[in-house]
Amino acid sequence: MSGFSFEIHYKSEDSRARLTTITTPHGKIDTPNFIFCGTKASIKGLSPAQMKECNTSIILSNTYHLMLQPGADLIAKMGGLHKFMGWDGPMFTDSGGYQIFSLGHGSVSSEIKGAGLQNRKQSLVKITKDGAEFKSYIDGRTFFLSPEESIKIQRKLGADLIVQLDECTPFHVNKDYTAKSMEMSKIWGDRSIAEWHRKDNGSQVMYGIVQGGVYPDLRKISCNYIAEQDFFGTAVGGSLGDSKEHMYEVVSYCSPYLPENRPVHLLGIGGFRDIFEGVKLGMDTFDCVSPTRLARHGWALKKGEPKDRVNIRNSKYKEDGSPIDSSCNCHCCQNYSNAYLHHLFKAGELLGMQLLSIHNVFTMNRLMAEIRQAIKDDNLNILAKDWYVI
Amino acid sequence: MSGFSFEIHYKSEDSRARLTTITTPHGKIDTPNFIFCGTKASIKGLSPAQMKECNTSIILSNTYHLMLQPGADLIAKMGGLHKFMGWDGPMFTDSGGYQIFSLGHGSVSSEIKGAGLQNRKQSLVKITKDGAEFKSYIDGRTFFLSPEESIKIQRKLGADLIVQLDECTPFHVNKDYTAKSMEMSKIWGDRSIAEWHRKDNGSQVMYGIVQGGVYPDLRKISCNYIAEQDFFGTAVGGSLGDSKEHMYEVVSYCSPYLPENRPVHLLGIGGFRDIFEGVKLGMDTFDCVSPTRLARHGWALKKGEPKDRVNIRNSKYKEDGSPIDSSCNCHCCQNYSNAYLHHLFKAGELLGMQLLSIHNVFTMNRLMAEIRQAIKDDNLNILAKDWYVI
Repeated sequence: MSGFSFEIHYKSEDSRARLTTITTPHGKIDTPNFIFCGTKASIKGLSPAQMKECNTSIILSNTYHLMLQPGADLIAKMGGLHKFMGWDGPMFTDSGGYQIFSLGHGSVSSEIKGAGLQNRKQSLVKITKDGAEFKSYIDGRTFFLSPEESIKIQRKLGADLIVQLDECTPFHVNKDYTAKSMEMSKIWGDRSIAEWHRKDNGSQVMYGIVQGGVYPDLRKISCNYIAEQDFFGTAVGGSLGDSKEHMYEVVSYCSPYLPENRPVHLLGIGGFRDIFEGVKLGMDTFDCVSPTRLARHGWALKKGEPKDRVNIRNSKYKEDGSPIDSSCNCHCCQNYSNAYLHHLFKAGELLGMQLLSIHNVFTMNRLMAEIRQAIKDDNLNILAKDWYVI
Repeated sequence: MSGFSFEIHYKSEDSRARLTTITTPHGKIDTPNFIFCGTKASIKGLSPAQMKECNTSIILSNTYHLMLQPGADLIAKMGGLHKFMGWDGPMFTDSGGYQIFSLGHGSVSSEIKGAGLQNRKQSLVKITKDGAEFKSYIDGRTFFLSPEESIKIQRKLGADLIVQLDECTPFHVNKDYTAKSMEMSKIWGDRSIAEWHRKDNGSQVMYGIVQGGVYPDLRKISCNYIAEQDFFGTAVGGSLGDSKEHMYEVVSYCSPYLPENRPVHLLGIGGFRDIFEGVKLGMDTFDCVSPTRLARHGWALKKGEPKDRVNIRNSKYKEDGSPIDSSCNCHCCQNYSNAYLHHLFKAGELLGMQLLSIHNVFTMNRLMAEIRQAIKDDNLNILAKDWYVI
């Protein structure tokens, strides 16, 4: 762990909000911060250079997608993820578990997020205590992912921050299943750590994942297990309930039991309010595909708007010469009007997606910078009122 | 014409190749040079800032597309094309004629380029001496484009270099039709000039278009007409035959009769060999959608390759750690391997299109810069051997 460290600079008195710095061999991440998703070794529509111009500190890539295409061995041969995709800052990879289980249960995320069972084609073949067998969504080939295999793949990918394999327990199962699943994730955590240490050369550190579904006692047990192992960081995962309020409650079950001297990541969360609430519950980093996904569909993130966004396709922008957000310093807001962006989306021009992606990434990084400043100034609740409406 | 001028710096002794500078209120264009197509007020996939990083001097936008979407009045209201799309360099607009007639005859360009009649839905309703009636490809509304209307629209768009309306004569018609069509283009030329002068404030200058199909005598008549009118520049248009060799021959019919003290543009041509041959026949500028269109389909322009390009989807690039062109200084070649680009296209990642577009635009600008240097050094034919294979 030579190139890694974690420092806490300041703790809020009103909540669990804190200012920290995660140091990796590829650079530092001041937290609270946001991790952008480059699922298939690419942020959709933006280059690493553009991500840096948008003040991005860290990106992630998905083990599940990369093991299927182009394959971890190819990426290793090309010098690892950093070199392959041209990103020289800190990187995070997940374990592959989330996609295997959420796709296996019928959809990428709706089930984990409590939206119920879907009728999508299922790709998960079998879960045993050894690991999970699943079919590739690309060509139907059968793959097997064990804790050891996930870590071996993440080692080949070479991200700074890696994650243990867990079973990502769905929402619809009962407490008994959730408890058993959590116990299996603990065993998989032990095996993930063992595989990490087997070839640890100091270039990667591992996060454990808290499971336990929506049950306070299970969340506590899972947190205590994670705290006892020598993980570098803690990720809060699994089912977080079926509403925003339920999510905040489930995260709050974990907060008191999270090891304080480790960074905490909240998996898959990106709404403005969710981030404020998460920060107050002690979360240091967040990730979500939403900034670039929303951009590709014509949504621009904007502080103080319902659902955090405006739809640039709306006809009210047709003759609007002002930028998305006149207080925003991004390349898009500094150079282009709503009328132009509206035209690009109506005309199906690729540039529209790129410009809104730049704005949305910049806006997330601006949000996180303003949150860090507000923690320092002890006025997080005042800032929150600017950013979201309930 | 206050802000405009045209200077010839050097003339080759071996051919009609020359070095010139076209000065516009928005900047200078050293020629030979290439004009990139931003059809709907956007270079597909690249921002004006990226175009500049690729050393681009001038871009064009299409009157036909813009009159239909978002409409010339809206662009005028937004301050004109330059401001609307954030490009502050020289701009060119066409008259709308090419698209109306080529779409009207069944396809965008195959007919003009001699590939024969197509079965595409026809949008041209009627051509009279007054102008052309056609239906919008977007919503079926009927539009009428006259010489006066084309110039009024181009005035609202506000490009530096504008073009007379002409009838873009198809390849399959006989000499008699071609002659009559050319005569009508002459009348439309007179009317275009009259409308330009009616409200000329010195911010735009006009190119006349040489027609006459594949007939030497008609090309000569058309050139002489253009030379007698006070156009700023000359564009060589219409049917240029059904093969590369035929095209060079048809352009050679025009060369001796082109007014020497005006810039000459060859419409719709972008192949490496075509540009070398065009330069030797006295062409100063060229335009084609190919650099960005090829990029979107996974083709990277590369000197010395058959058809000027390589297909990055080809499996031979799967594990190729080298850049597209190790002699290229573009952002793509400086940062990404063929293996990564191959992966992006196989995985359907948007970034692939952006990176290849950067490479292709940069490569066209590099080609033109090398051609300018070679004219100066009197070794154009030696350079040509590097760039294309027959």
